[in-house]
Amino acid sequence: MDLDVVFLGTSGSAPTAQRAAAATLVRRGGDRLLLDCAEGTQRQLLRSDVGLAELREVFLTHYHADHYLGLPGMLKTFALRGRELPLTVYGPPGLRDLITALRRVFGKLTYELDLVELRPGEALERDGYTITTFGVNHGIAAVGYAILEEGRPGRFDVETADRLGVPDGPARGALQHGEPVTLADGSTVTPEMVLGEPRRGRKVVVTGDTAPSDSVVEAAIGADLLVHEATFCADETDRAQETLHSTTLGAAGVAQRAGVEMLALTHLSGRYGGREVEAEARAVFPNTVVPRDFDVVAIPFPERGGPELIPKGARSRPPGIGSEA
Amino acid sequence: MDLDVVFLGTSGSAPTAQRAAAATLVRRGGDRLLLDCAEGTQRQLLRSDVGLAELREVFLTHYHADHYLGLPGMLKTFALRGRELPLTVYGPPGLRDLITALRRVFGKLTYELDLVELRPGEALERDGYTITTFGVNHGIAAVGYAILEEGRPGRFDVETADRLGVPDGPARGALQHGEPVTLADGSTVTPEMVLGEPRRGRKVVVTGDTAPSDSVVEAAIGADLLVHEATFCADETDRAQETLHSTTLGAAGVAQRAGVEMLALTHLSGRYGGREVEAEARAVFPNTVVPRDFDVVAIPFPERGGPELIPKGARSRPPGIGSEA
Repeated sequence: MDLDVVFLGTSGSAPTAQRAAAATLVRRGGDRLLLDCAEGTQRQLLRSDVGLAELREVFLTHYHADHYLGLPGMLKTFALRGRELPLTVYGPPGLRDLITALRRVFGKLTYELDLVELRPGEALERDGYTITTFGVNHGIAAVGYAILEEGRPGRFDVETADRLGVPDGPARGALQHGEPVTLADGSTVTPEMVLGEPRRGRKVVVTGDTAPSDSVVEAAIGADLLVHEATFCADETDRAQETLHSTTLGAAGVAQRAGVEMLALTHLSGRYGGREVEAEARAVFPNTVVPRDFDVVAIPFPERGGPELIPKGARSRPPGIGSEA
Repeated sequence: MDLDVVFLGTSGSAPTAQRAAAATLVRRGGDRLLLDCAEGTQRQLLRSDVGLAELREVFLTHYHADHYLGLPGMLKTFALRGRELPLTVYGPPGLRDLITALRRVFGKLTYELDLVELRPGEALERDGYTITTFGVNHGIAAVGYAILEEGRPGRFDVETADRLGVPDGPARGALQHGEPVTLADGSTVTPEMVLGEPRRGRKVVVTGDTAPSDSVVEAAIGADLLVHEATFCADETDRAQETLHSTTLGAAGVAQRAGVEMLALTHLSGRYGGREVEAEARAVFPNTVVPRDFDVVAIPFPERGGPELIPKGARSRPPGIGSEA
């Protein structure tokens, strides 16, 4: 099951020539979860390998314009195409009020638009994973999203199964699915006898805008990938505190405390290119990346390796990543 | 005095990977007139040679989302920069109502935002040119804009001035500015004696969305450049009529009837690349171009040549065009 994150917009507050404003796409198998939808997101999708797919779910972190202003145009474009598939938009309280105000922009839609307001701690169950909101510290109603896969059964121990006389075929399948089997000699083999330790599901956490926060640390514990905002470098710490944003060092500290595998920084102020942001954060948390627009971070199953940044334009992915789009 | 048109967004209804939605910048000397401001326009400016300059005037043709949705984000970005220079937005009736509805998006501004509603036929006087609105046929309140320069004095006839004994220096300057001069021998030379026919000012006409219309023909008579929408090719004539848009042939017919120098087609449906649009229109009106995003049409003084398409990335312009950015 492929799991990756496509960075569609990595600029904070306003776009730059190089970076569009906030939009992040999490892909798992055939699911596409769009987190935030700044002005220009529909075109960023069109310009990416993803295309402007018929997204079924959009998740907003908060209602500052640089996080939602691409939504009305995208809703309108879907309607111009005659879309019939329902679309659900999630976000913290205030969503209905916002969409009501924007309705004159996108007008009548050809499909059902569902709005779901979520408070911190609410969870959405999906096939094989859960999306849980968590509180952040940005001074207004705002949430982050944690995507956590269900655990997988442990690895099947072929040698032990051979030794116990479990025949090839359905009996082994049943054991892998957690069912005990009775062999021809009358003995019983239970799953625990042939399966290793259950394997944890993968976890991706996206903060949206926030000052460094204990609630983010808690939500991010053990994440494979933490996508955290880093609007400023360390010399702008005062300004970050005033505006309830994070610096490079603040975000890296959160990653360190949460013990994540990889930290991806986004929402950069237009004054930064990216390398200086990366260098500062790596001094605290070495496995930090600062994706450019259209870069992808692939998250393989942990036994196959750690998360890996795949730069835009890298056609083929390294072997073993297992996350072909 | 340089005059050119920068095509910032040339797609109709929705953006494509290649083309952003409607935005056209007319540059004359130091003046920058932005006509329409679709989603993504601020970033198109940033990605162009123009940059996100502190525009003083934005002109909207009508209030379909694909023509104004970039405005709130751009207003907000200007405020984030701490802009103090006032900005005026012009458009047909309905402008105040629209901006009131969008105010929650851009919030409090750091500068004065003036809104001016214009009815067809209203004119704005500028230093050396006039901007006149004209009615179009799009089923809602909608206008096009005609930019017309004042005429210039005729060419100074050096040979005649020599023959008449007009000395070099101030006397020739006075004649060129329309004042008679008395020579040392007591004779009088009048401007008419040394100046050719007054030269017409240049004219650029931008339609916004419209079905082919007599009012556009009238507004475009003698234009150097007519920027006309061509949403569809000729095989979609029925659909163009239903939606009050133009086909290639419809737009080319308007250009022909108005006797313009060059026709630039824009607002293409996403199904077209551009060459097929150009080919169809040229069958009716040969001097048709279909600019891509970031292409420029330079409009030299007529005695120096006709309008010329300068493709994106053409660093140096042909000699004599006289329209360096």
